Amino acid sequence: MIRHIVLFTWTDDATDEQRAAVATELRGLQAVIPQIRAFTVGDDAGINQGNHDFAVVADFDSVDDYLVYRDHPDHQAVIAERIKPILASRAAVQFSF
Amino acid sequence: MIRHIVLFTWTDDATDEQRAAVATELRGLQAVIPQIRAFTVGDDAGINQGNHDFAVVADFDSVDDYLVYRDHPDHQAVIAERIKPILASRAAVQFSF
Repeated sequence: MIRHIVLFTWTDDATDEQRAAVATELRGLQAVIPQIRAFTVGDDAGINQGNHDFAVVADFDSVDDYLVYRDHPDHQAVIAERIKPILASRAAVQFSF
Repeated sequence: MIRHIVLFTWTDDATDEQRAAVATELRGLQAVIPQIRAFTVGDDAGINQGNHDFAVVADFDSVDDYLVYRDHPDHQAVIAERIKPILASRAAVQFSF
């Protein structure tokens, strides 16, 4: 399986509503992209200093299934309309497990 | 549950042996830290440009259990002896799921 991870930091002026919309709309992708096998998102719990603000972990059966998610127009719309307007930085890895 | 994620980039002079030792020794922590409920690590698959090099995803029943892992001397030894010598950058999130 392929595990896709992305961590974001948000701009200082990102509102709670904007942050919540990212989580809600990403979760909604499970209903339209059946290749998603497992999907968790969440705000950093505030345990440690210096963390990123938000995480996405999505599991797929194969690289091809991950690419369906990556390039899906509904996913690209969330990136363009919800993530990019409040994005400060991004770190990502995809790995086999 | 609490999911702990950390993504690393390695220095340019990190050897394959040094990178492999990080994965092997982190995986070995499962044998000595029973609070770990699930644990996956892996090298970036090379699908996308600009990614970090290596990922750790560890799941715990509670924040307290995560803290046992975070502060465990065997974990701290892997960080000091295996990770820090080849560490270029680090991004982390802990979130409830």
